[in-house]
Amino acid sequence: MSKPSDQPSLRWDDNAIVTLDQRALPHERRLLRLDTVDDVITAITTLAVRGAPSIGLAGALGVALSAYAHCLPGGTGGGQAAVRADARRLAAARPTAVNLAWAVERAVGRLADGPDAVLAEATAMIDEDRTVNRQMVAHAVRAVRDRCPQRPLRLLTHCNTGRLATAAVGTALGTILALADAGEVTEVLVDETRPLLQGARLTAWELAEAGVPHRVCIDSAAAAAMRQGLVDCVLVGADRITARGDVANKIGTYGLAIAAAHHGIPFIVVAPESSWDRSLADGRDIVIEERAADEVTSYGGVRTTPRGTRAYNPAFDVTPVSLITAIVSEHGVHHASEVTA
Amino acid sequence: MSKPSDQPSLRWDDNAIVTLDQRALPHERRLLRLDTVDDVITAITTLAVRGAPSIGLAGALGVALSAYAHCLPGGTGGGQAAVRADARRLAAARPTAVNLAWAVERAVGRLADGPDAVLAEATAMIDEDRTVNRQMVAHAVRAVRDRCPQRPLRLLTHCNTGRLATAAVGTALGTILALADAGEVTEVLVDETRPLLQGARLTAWELAEAGVPHRVCIDSAAAAAMRQGLVDCVLVGADRITARGDVANKIGTYGLAIAAAHHGIPFIVVAPESSWDRSLADGRDIVIEERAADEVTSYGGVRTTPRGTRAYNPAFDVTPVSLITAIVSEHGVHHASEVTA
Repeated sequence: MSKPSDQPSLRWDDNAIVTLDQRALPHERRLLRLDTVDDVITAITTLAVRGAPSIGLAGALGVALSAYAHCLPGGTGGGQAAVRADARRLAAARPTAVNLAWAVERAVGRLADGPDAVLAEATAMIDEDRTVNRQMVAHAVRAVRDRCPQRPLRLLTHCNTGRLATAAVGTALGTILALADAGEVTEVLVDETRPLLQGARLTAWELAEAGVPHRVCIDSAAAAAMRQGLVDCVLVGADRITARGDVANKIGTYGLAIAAAHHGIPFIVVAPESSWDRSLADGRDIVIEERAADEVTSYGGVRTTPRGTRAYNPAFDVTPVSLITAIVSEHGVHHASEVTA
Repeated sequence: MSKPSDQPSLRWDDNAIVTLDQRALPHERRLLRLDTVDDVITAITTLAVRGAPSIGLAGALGVALSAYAHCLPGGTGGGQAAVRADARRLAAARPTAVNLAWAVERAVGRLADGPDAVLAEATAMIDEDRTVNRQMVAHAVRAVRDRCPQRPLRLLTHCNTGRLATAAVGTALGTILALADAGEVTEVLVDETRPLLQGARLTAWELAEAGVPHRVCIDSAAAAAMRQGLVDCVLVGADRITARGDVANKIGTYGLAIAAAHHGIPFIVVAPESSWDRSLADGRDIVIEERAADEVTSYGGVRTTPRGTRAYNPAFDVTPVSLITAIVSEHGVHHASEVTA
């Protein structure tokens, strides 16, 4: 029997996409069956499927769903134009992670060869994601070892960048799991990652599943943990990386990077090549998704603020390359300035 | 009819302490009647009464409750020794805010003169808190004006430092309200302040009551807001200040101070003289209360992490004086180093 981490978070099953509903975790392991492009878009916008690599793969499989619906004799018709319209809607489901648009475009590129070719491209991308993931983690493990000579390690991470966010072991969390597997990790501090608590709900779940010692903390306790000497290295993923290496990632990443630089703690970004957007130089040009106020004004369905309270709720922030120690992809370390506080 | 902000958050009423139950806010305005020292200790440890100045005043009134119980012919007896034992328990209810031990000790100092003298001392302290508050806010308003020439102001605050935390308008929030009253505030960004959400629940409630424009944000969005230019000045309170000006305050304050320094944004602490503990030089010597894991692993009864998840949950952190622009008390500005990032 395969380990849980060997099962991809997304798969194609009899003309539908089957995925774990990440909204129900950690309390319930509920499978979600996405039969239409609208199902896929809803799953992405509501974060049932999330994580930059995963939403890219869901988008690509969504193009295959559309191709079967519109380009087969038995389908609802409309042909390639209808599929391209669906693809545009899929690519726009969330604006910040570049992987989504990239993956959708790749799948659309095979449209002329028919639905089977689109599906083959999308499923090939899942397999590729697994290979890319293994290579990236190997580079990232070396990057951490090079920069953190002390053993064993106390690591801190933000949001969820594990197998739920990718088709394989994950980016930053995959690296943490590999280091733990090598016996090099004492403890992982997991930022809960408000507002949607991907750290508390998903990363804690993956670490528990893997048997890695960890504690969850509120996001704003990370700086105190650094000052107390509880953090040797910070590892995060990325949703979009500009040509010069500015990184858009889950809101809270930027503050963590400032705090890590202040304490002289290595801050390492682990993300696949598909997260790079070389059409942008400056991170300030990245479109940041602003999400609904009720994510902030409530917690797990419990309203916390007075009625009518407004919120500032950007889903991502941008960390300038000057605060980043290294950015690692499947091709190795892209940037390795030494952080000076 | 007096404005809501003219009503002290705590008062003595027919041999009991009457206070607003801050756990029920903002959804319910529930009064709490504390008849015994144990009631007071429970109210303090569960944060029904919170905020460094308020818990000091509750502690002093708690000594009065004990004095009436043990030092009157009709009381349960035990005399001054029993009151001193109660006072020690009251002073130890929460370890970080120095105001609690200070206020309890001041009330105990009148014990030789009988229960009425103890109560008179405690109620005098409430009146004093109001005077101190007015003076402190006047100094803090000037400190902000001196350091933030641009008008109108976008301010950011953390936790709750308003009338719920004091017997009057509040420290940092009192200053914000005074600036808003003078027409100098465009918007207040309110950190929600996980884990117990004093910002989302209490500060938003006080700002709404006062009609001051505000938005709540997750704590980790503060750095992004600074980078976006949404913050001209950060104002916070304090639970304990060492001789050299290191400040223990609600967890998250330290990360905010690092981010503010990084952006060259003034970071101003507003706290009464009773928050200073000159017996300590270095902030590292301040005892930091570590609270229960379930504050982090859930909110409002909704569990977020997998069962059995451990947490890192310090209730406070320490900001070194080097990151602070000014510390303001009723005596004026104590420290005014210019922050250099």
